[in-house]
Amino acid sequence: MINPTMRGYGAEKSSIREISASAAGRKAAIGAANVFDFSLGNPTAPAPDEVRQSIERALTLPSMQLHGYTPAVGIFEAREAVAASLNRRWGTDYAAGDLFLTCGAAPALVATFKALAEPGVGDEIVVIAPYFPEYKVWIECAGATCVEVLADQRTFDIDVDAVAAALTERTRAIVVNSPNNPTGAVYPERNLRELSRALDEAERRFGTQITLVSDEPYREIAYGVEVPWIPSIHDRTIVTYSYSKALSLPGERIGWVLVPPTHPEHDALYEAVAGASRVSGHVCAPSLFQRVLADCVDVPCDVESYAKNRDALTEGLSALGYEFVEPQGAFYLWLKSLEPSASAFCDRARELELFPVPSDSFGCPGWVRVGYCVSYQTIVDSMPAWKSLAESYAEAS
Amino acid sequence: MINPTMRGYGAEKSSIREISASAAGRKAAIGAANVFDFSLGNPTAPAPDEVRQSIERALTLPSMQLHGYTPAVGIFEAREAVAASLNRRWGTDYAAGDLFLTCGAAPALVATFKALAEPGVGDEIVVIAPYFPEYKVWIECAGATCVEVLADQRTFDIDVDAVAAALTERTRAIVVNSPNNPTGAVYPERNLRELSRALDEAERRFGTQITLVSDEPYREIAYGVEVPWIPSIHDRTIVTYSYSKALSLPGERIGWVLVPPTHPEHDALYEAVAGASRVSGHVCAPSLFQRVLADCVDVPCDVESYAKNRDALTEGLSALGYEFVEPQGAFYLWLKSLEPSASAFCDRARELELFPVPSDSFGCPGWVRVGYCVSYQTIVDSMPAWKSLAESYAEAS
Repeated sequence: MINPTMRGYGAEKSSIREISASAAGRKAAIGAANVFDFSLGNPTAPAPDEVRQSIERALTLPSMQLHGYTPAVGIFEAREAVAASLNRRWGTDYAAGDLFLTCGAAPALVATFKALAEPGVGDEIVVIAPYFPEYKVWIECAGATCVEVLADQRTFDIDVDAVAAALTERTRAIVVNSPNNPTGAVYPERNLRELSRALDEAERRFGTQITLVSDEPYREIAYGVEVPWIPSIHDRTIVTYSYSKALSLPGERIGWVLVPPTHPEHDALYEAVAGASRVSGHVCAPSLFQRVLADCVDVPCDVESYAKNRDALTEGLSALGYEFVEPQGAFYLWLKSLEPSASAFCDRARELELFPVPSDSFGCPGWVRVGYCVSYQTIVDSMPAWKSLAESYAEAS
Repeated sequence: MINPTMRGYGAEKSSIREISASAAGRKAAIGAANVFDFSLGNPTAPAPDEVRQSIERALTLPSMQLHGYTPAVGIFEAREAVAASLNRRWGTDYAAGDLFLTCGAAPALVATFKALAEPGVGDEIVVIAPYFPEYKVWIECAGATCVEVLADQRTFDIDVDAVAAALTERTRAIVVNSPNNPTGAVYPERNLRELSRALDEAERRFGTQITLVSDEPYREIAYGVEVPWIPSIHDRTIVTYSYSKALSLPGERIGWVLVPPTHPEHDALYEAVAGASRVSGHVCAPSLFQRVLADCVDVPCDVESYAKNRDALTEGLSALGYEFVEPQGAFYLWLKSLEPSASAFCDRARELELFPVPSDSFGCPGWVRVGYCVSYQTIVDSMPAWKSLAESYAEAS
């Protein structure tokens, strides 16, 4: 008399977590320096010192003001600081009332999907494959069907023709994640404008509305390319964000949903996000970290450490003849598997103590994700193993 | 093209929050000292100093260890500390693996209801009225029907005969909340043993299983009475807990689900709680406060300040001839309305700047909830208004 669906979701092992656990096992067996764990997306850059200072300052506040319930939407100061920061960056006119603070991007997306889709009526939400695997779980639990559309297999930008072909009168939303996990692609403005036109055209054709869900946890991690601000390109956009990567606070669970005033159903959508959060057990985002947010919203992300890793990894793998997508953002390298089965390739890599994640987990065959939010030394030290791996395939052919 | 159900949940005003907002309006208009706001359950006792010390200690940890992702279930040290604390208090044999840390009691209950009920098959979950209004929202969003059974209208203990009559082959769970919000009742062991027998009997009759959900955010706030440990009375029990009241940390969102090893479906239920948390967007409980929990699990709650308020309130109202349930726990007084309509009574109270909450919000007519987690001075200063209120009814009759 236990819900079998929920039990299934609890029992299902994330392949990312399994690979990480298996790497941890090897580290215990042969020493951490001999194992090259590229499986996780746990930021290695430390949280900026401003976070510690903000916490120390907050500890001088009266207890109820610091640790008491906040409004479900979050404290005004934090939402106003976020709005002001966005307005400075994008020339927009957002207000605190457009923001809803959440316990990170995961519940922000769950609330967004539930706000947009209705169970039992056949609603569809489109994702660009490869994609973060939890999207599918959250979309299905919002009662919608997760429709996968493969990205352009050369650039890994959005294949807008393929998206246009997949849109139906049942499409309620499309998820866009740029900088992208797992490919490291940053969609250029041209690509996003094409998508916007395709969405407008489909809305006209079907007499429906399709919201663009822009999931942006990696926004601050980009390597010299512009990351376009999507609500300025497409009106019917909602944004989900997290400070997990930007401030290296993934465990603290702080993020937000922005319903821009340009979204034609702004008020209804904001209300539905609030309702969907409520029914998921949201009371408020952690109050101490709401204050940290108010203080640290403009503290820059330490992109340099990831850029250094990226350069070492791409230069090393390039010299060994590997093919990959040049990463423009996030901290993942999307590497072509040296055999058709990415899983078989990962199995062989594992024998050399290399632990990337096969692309099948992300809804796309034939590639692996190499997470380079690791120490620089790990990247340098892994090169002989990557060399042996490439050679083992060269010998076989 | 927005989910109307979610929009409805977002638009719905909590009557508690509305009364509190109206009290805040009066405070702004006539001064806080002249308004007696008994609407909220925001603990006024400050968080113990050990919390601040624990946070300061945590700030010396490496950033990734402190702020990084933790396992979804929570860090081992915190879960082990909670298990050890429970084992010391109740002579039990719980392990870290029986606990799942959550962002407070609200998502703990959402996950529990989703783990136990299946949508679309007519499952029922019983609550004892009066009850915390969000129970109904969460139960309905888990796809079950919320079946209200009135408490014994004299003691406000569980009316076991009424519960037995309400149990059906569709009953999946019953929620027990002791110390009780809103009545302040603490169910005695005898009452709980009777309930346990009634549940066992119904399971035999229907060939089903019924889990007792013990929601215990007020466990530490009791006035000289024992709060029985329900898993030691009834095997098929799951416990949800929060540090919102015990450590005065309601904004920080830290709590847990305990699936005791004595629950006959322990493994399946734990797995389903994990799955239901996952689909609600749970990643982990806030990592800093997981560490606080590991340090502060045995720090005593400041019951004395609430006991002082309770005594002042009950003595004052008793002298004025009011009828109420003698509060044994939590920080609410359950007061008999002086007219059949609790709402009309509250309206008249409001004219005297008194702001209790009518019992209709809690699924039970004719009473009001007086939250005494306020300053002692507020209670003392409110007495003339309570006196005028009583007199206004005496004059009319």
